[in-house]
Amino acid sequence: MHLVCLDLEGVLVPEVWIAFAKATKIPELQRTTKDEPDYDKLMRFRLDILAKNNFKLADIQQVISKMNPLPGALEFSRAVRERTQLIILSGIFEEFTEPLMAKLGWPTIFCNSLEIGPDGTITGYQLRQKNDKKRAVQAFQSLNIKVFAAGDSFNDLEMIDTADAGYLFRAPANIRKRYPEIPCLNTYDGLLTEIDSFLESGA
Amino acid sequence: MHLVCLDLEGVLVPEVWIAFAKATKIPELQRTTKDEPDYDKLMRFRLDILAKNNFKLADIQQVISKMNPLPGALEFSRAVRERTQLIILSGIFEEFTEPLMAKLGWPTIFCNSLEIGPDGTITGYQLRQKNDKKRAVQAFQSLNIKVFAAGDSFNDLEMIDTADAGYLFRAPANIRKRYPEIPCLNTYDGLLTEIDSFLESGA
Repeated sequence: MHLVCLDLEGVLVPEVWIAFAKATKIPELQRTTKDEPDYDKLMRFRLDILAKNNFKLADIQQVISKMNPLPGALEFSRAVRERTQLIILSGIFEEFTEPLMAKLGWPTIFCNSLEIGPDGTITGYQLRQKNDKKRAVQAFQSLNIKVFAAGDSFNDLEMIDTADAGYLFRAPANIRKRYPEIPCLNTYDGLLTEIDSFLESGA
Repeated sequence: MHLVCLDLEGVLVPEVWIAFAKATKIPELQRTTKDEPDYDKLMRFRLDILAKNNFKLADIQQVISKMNPLPGALEFSRAVRERTQLIILSGIFEEFTEPLMAKLGWPTIFCNSLEIGPDGTITGYQLRQKNDKKRAVQAFQSLNIKVFAAGDSFNDLEMIDTADAGYLFRAPANIRKRYPEIPCLNTYDGLLTEIDSFLESGA
């Protein structure tokens, strides 16, 4: 059995925090896992800014509700699901995902969750576990499932490395330069071609 | 994070082998995992009958292409996917699943595969692993995911037992009688109510 594991933001949908940064005109919120390898540091930085500006969960959800999948992402994810199994492995919080998953036809997603205060303030976050994407790939492999993985960020590197086949997808220059040994694809057609090869290889 | 694991045949779609038995008027093929706890014994019995009657993969696929989800199953599975994550854990073969998954909106499914000869004869089958459903639940739990499981057959019992919450669904009398300690639900509304309780309990 085969399974494709994809990162969400930057691969199928735009970066949520960048969209929120633009909507609120707070440029500091444009930092993502593509810029900051330390996720906890990044999240504490984000939550600080939210608190200072008195933004609540509902403010972020409102911005997300207007977001759309990247052009071609719905067609690509459908094509993957017609060929094999797809599970999205994302650092996103489940409180953010609903409108985006609805627009992608409800693919399965494994992600993290937020801690929300009684007034709707985001008080913290819960990572499901350390190295969550790598651990997920290993868990699937323990079920005798061959895994194809693709992502664009620092937190995708272990997933890509652990998978039976793995690619960077539209990764920024700093990551491509630092990990030249991982091939980087830039189009859904290119990614689908590699997925087809993976499925046919019986890898 | 939460995940619902459902059996496929008998829970979301009719039993494929029973549909094929009816279409071909071969009553022996009506035996399923609800009647025979030993899956390998059951499959060797089925493959023997296929060989004797010169049925090929395409003959079964043709019958499946005309099958539909059970009444209410599409709406139920959509309701589950709007609330949480769903992965179908099934003993079915991936060569059988496409028309059924299309009609269910392409949920994620972990299943087995067939060995097909050059002329389209089914020469054998590959179980992904022993105790596949239980192992899958354990793998999800190792990712700090809480699992709700439901199924109707002997090969669902370990999955139901291992999950954080588990139910029989429309199980036949012989199984209900043998496992009175496992509650049995008979409607999608009833199952959804239990799933809602599970999600709210923070189990």
